[in-house]
Amino acid sequence: MKNLLLASTSTLHGQKYLEYLLPEIEKHFNGCSEILFIPYARPGGISHADYTSLAASAFEQAGLAVRGIHEFSDPARAVKNADGIFTGGGNTFLLVRELYANQLLPVLKETLRNGTPYLGTSAGTNIAGLTMKTTNDMPIVYPPNFTTLGLIPFNINAHYLDPDPNSTHKGETRETRIKEFHQFNTQPVVGLREGSWLEVKGSEITLKGGKSARIFKAEKLPYEVENESSLNDLN
Amino acid sequence: MKNLLLASTSTLHGQKYLEYLLPEIEKHFNGCSEILFIPYARPGGISHADYTSLAASAFEQAGLAVRGIHEFSDPARAVKNADGIFTGGGNTFLLVRELYANQLLPVLKETLRNGTPYLGTSAGTNIAGLTMKTTNDMPIVYPPNFTTLGLIPFNINAHYLDPDPNSTHKGETRETRIKEFHQFNTQPVVGLREGSWLEVKGSEITLKGGKSARIFKAEKLPYEVENESSLNDLN
Repeated sequence: MKNLLLASTSTLHGQKYLEYLLPEIEKHFNGCSEILFIPYARPGGISHADYTSLAASAFEQAGLAVRGIHEFSDPARAVKNADGIFTGGGNTFLLVRELYANQLLPVLKETLRNGTPYLGTSAGTNIAGLTMKTTNDMPIVYPPNFTTLGLIPFNINAHYLDPDPNSTHKGETRETRIKEFHQFNTQPVVGLREGSWLEVKGSEITLKGGKSARIFKAEKLPYEVENESSLNDLN
Repeated sequence: MKNLLLASTSTLHGQKYLEYLLPEIEKHFNGCSEILFIPYARPGGISHADYTSLAASAFEQAGLAVRGIHEFSDPARAVKNADGIFTGGGNTFLLVRELYANQLLPVLKETLRNGTPYLGTSAGTNIAGLTMKTTNDMPIVYPPNFTTLGLIPFNINAHYLDPDPNSTHKGETRETRIKEFHQFNTQPVVGLREGSWLEVKGSEITLKGGKSARIFKAEKLPYEVENESSLNDLN
């Protein structure tokens, strides 16, 4: 039975890394002795080792040890054997390229379908969707494919941001970008605001964190769903 | 001799489409009877025909006729025979996918190297750089490659936006994204603010439009160059 926490962001304004998620992390990974960390997204170009240290120092406060997947000679086996898995944010193109390069997508998908508890933040959340085609990230590297894990039957837009009514900038709003996405793709998109996460328990998908989320469907007007709403029927 | 205008945006806040560029368009395409428009980037999912009408209504004010490339049975020949070419903004992934699908990149590159006057705005400017890896757009479709025209020896970040010191949003700033780009790529990036354009005349590249631009190089601190600066040595 799938057991996923898919968070929009790792960090809230004015807080430390993962601070707001620590109570959830403690519950979610209860009984795990060591968490496998996937640092491939490398925010700001940070090294795998430094990123793993950052994750470890946060997880330590929840009484959990962390080991980076780059430390294993057989990363697929590390995924299969993990007590729990956390994929951090950064650049989704880089994350997906590395997952393909290490042939990890099939084993990660199977492992998470079988119930290994998983936390994703930002890019680590994007990859739970059907494709990475609704990431906000810059295409700094070329992945062999945009298809991701498909653990949920829709896409996520992490760090969802409402249009700023006072903006004079002419770059596209997030809503315009997702509208463009729906000219070429049919799956729904959940605009997940910072501080929100999706809790996935088997086929139950629930919005958590206190905020509403914005749902985009092809050829429909976008709408809001409230905190604690079920998204089981969104596909 | 190359003869390009590469604008950050088509439209300034509170103005009509291409309004601020009309005096430049008139000079740049002086002597042309018809401009070939490449509408592939389809902003907001608008159709090729509607986008071409929008471009035509702006160019009409500069006394120029416009025809969309989608109206030609042989688009490569349309590029070769064009008096002048304009590629509008929208989604860079879509634009690049369509350019590859129609096998237009080599012919467009050769035609523009040989001096056919060209205007790009936003996505149409991004493709003049070495790659599309510094676009801000959402990857709504998967192009076969991120390599673009390489008419200038660097990349452009269109709609360049300075970090907002009052923001509480945790999505990456533009500067952070470009820093990530430079972990994996060596070419410089010109952060081109809205209202700015690059004028390329042969090997002479000049910043125009009244604003400074921000230059990013791998392993260097970013710096500003003033309006009317030469970028001939940036590579």
